Amino acid sequence: MTSPTNRQILLAETPKDKLGPQHFRLTQGPVPAPRDGEALLRVRYISLDAANRAWMQGATYREAVGAGSVMAGGAIAEVVESKAPGFAPGDLVFADTGWQDYIALPVKRLLKVPKIEPMTHLLSVYGIAGLTAYFGLLRIADPKPGETVVVSAAAGSVGSIVGQIAKIKGCRVVGVAGGQQKCDWLVKELGFDAAVDYKAGPLFKALKEAAPKGIDVYFDNVGGDILEACLFQMNLNGRVSCCGAISAYDGAAPPAGPRGVPGLIVVKRLTLKGFIVTDFFAERDKALADLQSWVAAGKLRIEEDVIDGLENTPRALIGLLAGENRGKRMVKVA
Amino acid sequence: MTSPTNRQILLAETPKDKLGPQHFRLTQGPVPAPRDGEALLRVRYISLDAANRAWMQGATYREAVGAGSVMAGGAIAEVVESKAPGFAPGDLVFADTGWQDYIALPVKRLLKVPKIEPMTHLLSVYGIAGLTAYFGLLRIADPKPGETVVVSAAAGSVGSIVGQIAKIKGCRVVGVAGGQQKCDWLVKELGFDAAVDYKAGPLFKALKEAAPKGIDVYFDNVGGDILEACLFQMNLNGRVSCCGAISAYDGAAPPAGPRGVPGLIVVKRLTLKGFIVTDFFAERDKALADLQSWVAAGKLRIEEDVIDGLENTPRALIGLLAGENRGKRMVKVA
Repeated sequence: MTSPTNRQILLAETPKDKLGPQHFRLTQGPVPAPRDGEALLRVRYISLDAANRAWMQGATYREAVGAGSVMAGGAIAEVVESKAPGFAPGDLVFADTGWQDYIALPVKRLLKVPKIEPMTHLLSVYGIAGLTAYFGLLRIADPKPGETVVVSAAAGSVGSIVGQIAKIKGCRVVGVAGGQQKCDWLVKELGFDAAVDYKAGPLFKALKEAAPKGIDVYFDNVGGDILEACLFQMNLNGRVSCCGAISAYDGAAPPAGPRGVPGLIVVKRLTLKGFIVTDFFAERDKALADLQSWVAAGKLRIEEDVIDGLENTPRALIGLLAGENRGKRMVKVA
Repeated sequence: MTSPTNRQILLAETPKDKLGPQHFRLTQGPVPAPRDGEALLRVRYISLDAANRAWMQGATYREAVGAGSVMAGGAIAEVVESKAPGFAPGDLVFADTGWQDYIALPVKRLLKVPKIEPMTHLLSVYGIAGLTAYFGLLRIADPKPGETVVVSAAAGSVGSIVGQIAKIKGCRVVGVAGGQQKCDWLVKELGFDAAVDYKAGPLFKALKEAAPKGIDVYFDNVGGDILEACLFQMNLNGRVSCCGAISAYDGAAPPAGPRGVPGLIVVKRLTLKGFIVTDFFAERDKALADLQSWVAAGKLRIEEDVIDGLENTPRALIGLLAGENRGKRMVKVA
């Protein structure tokens, strides 16, 4: 038996514009040994998120990922060896393992997660995606029954859950997504009231037809033109939950901001509020209990897009940024 | 004795770009007679506000002022004849009288105000300006002692009061104003900790020096480049009180919005919140009591800029949009 090796995917070069395969490099080395207070982890499933791209551009809510480093990324991993109390082989954890087979980490950087079947749900509905949707919609925007909620990147991991939670809360829900196929899926399978294909033509007019009473809550994953179109259709006292700015991640310098800022914010008494899911982790148990009850009741459908093999992680992210996924994209490593 | 006439200033033409004297026309006609339920008012002092310019562009939180109408505007006026219970000659009211000598209005559109000396304070510290500063700072942004508060149009009617209230609340206060003279006045006379002259050079760098610990609260009267510069220097969980967008009022179509929206809002967990002072009128008495106590204690200095003569109202507004006033600008009509 040969000793296992640790494959690692490095960010070879900081992308100046659109991310491509040339920005990554696969290397391999020995499996690290855990030190006191650390656990050795076997990475099982790596989460792919649009924010991964933003991390390459500079410091955000975390350090930037610099050229030459292992590409960062959250994952579900299994403890294979522990030199810390409270962690034993077989335990499952969520951690920023980066894109590799193994890593030894101080256990204070590990979040223990329960063993559920399928394990992939720990990255979708019960992971960052589900919690982001839950807190960003309910705690930041607080939608009321009968209000109109619009969500962008609606077929993505977060957006697809946002829309379904808004339906559970009695809202009229409009999704914005790329392509007729995704739009059909949102309406026919997930129960959205309407969906707008932003690739199909003038967004403003299509949104107006889909949300004839105006927009009370906009859950913004993308920024840019879609945010601008929504701002102009927000109702008085509308709320914008600022979750992401995908439109600005995969390019050079950020473009100009949306028109209507701050004029429309004043006149319509809008609130735009940013958040990061970890801000709400103190309320995680309540959120997970709600999500579980909705899944059990058949009200919340889980969509996952699992790609096999660590070596495919770069193209999985590149594809996600191009909008090719539906639901939560992740890579099965082991 | 000849019967009095009613001079009226009309918006002769909707401005497409910068406002000029050619957009107004002075006419005169008979003094109107009040009908049942109305009071005839003699206009005393007309309030001038940057928002007057925005009203010409279209519907905002009020109907647009169309070409050919009497220019709208709030004023302190005196009841000269009443056909409604509860209002008697000599009573003072605040109302949207428009730019004219006399108007007959239904009394439900009048707000009775106390007789104080000087009456002008009813338009400055105890009027819309003072209340806007009070609610916009304390209710929208909620600054904490030790936090850094930046306010734009800081030498204007609202900004000069915002900065002084922030000082009363124990904040470090930085004003942004046009010209060294105004900046000196803010620091030497009003007690601001620092002031930045946006006409003097690169704003970003000057702001950074004036607010070395970053910005916790930005009270935005202007939008545009100054909002953008502040967004990039906001601290985590910073609040932007969106009060106005003067930079966008006196021109053609609104320009692109500030860069950093929504990216910085997400990463820094910012809140941008718009308001109109009337949203808070239920709490008016408490606000006025606080303002009065601060004035009495010498903590809040009142700056007024009174221009004489109804016929001078157009140039008074044009000058205000060009930033020539310090403190609350108004026109003495009678």
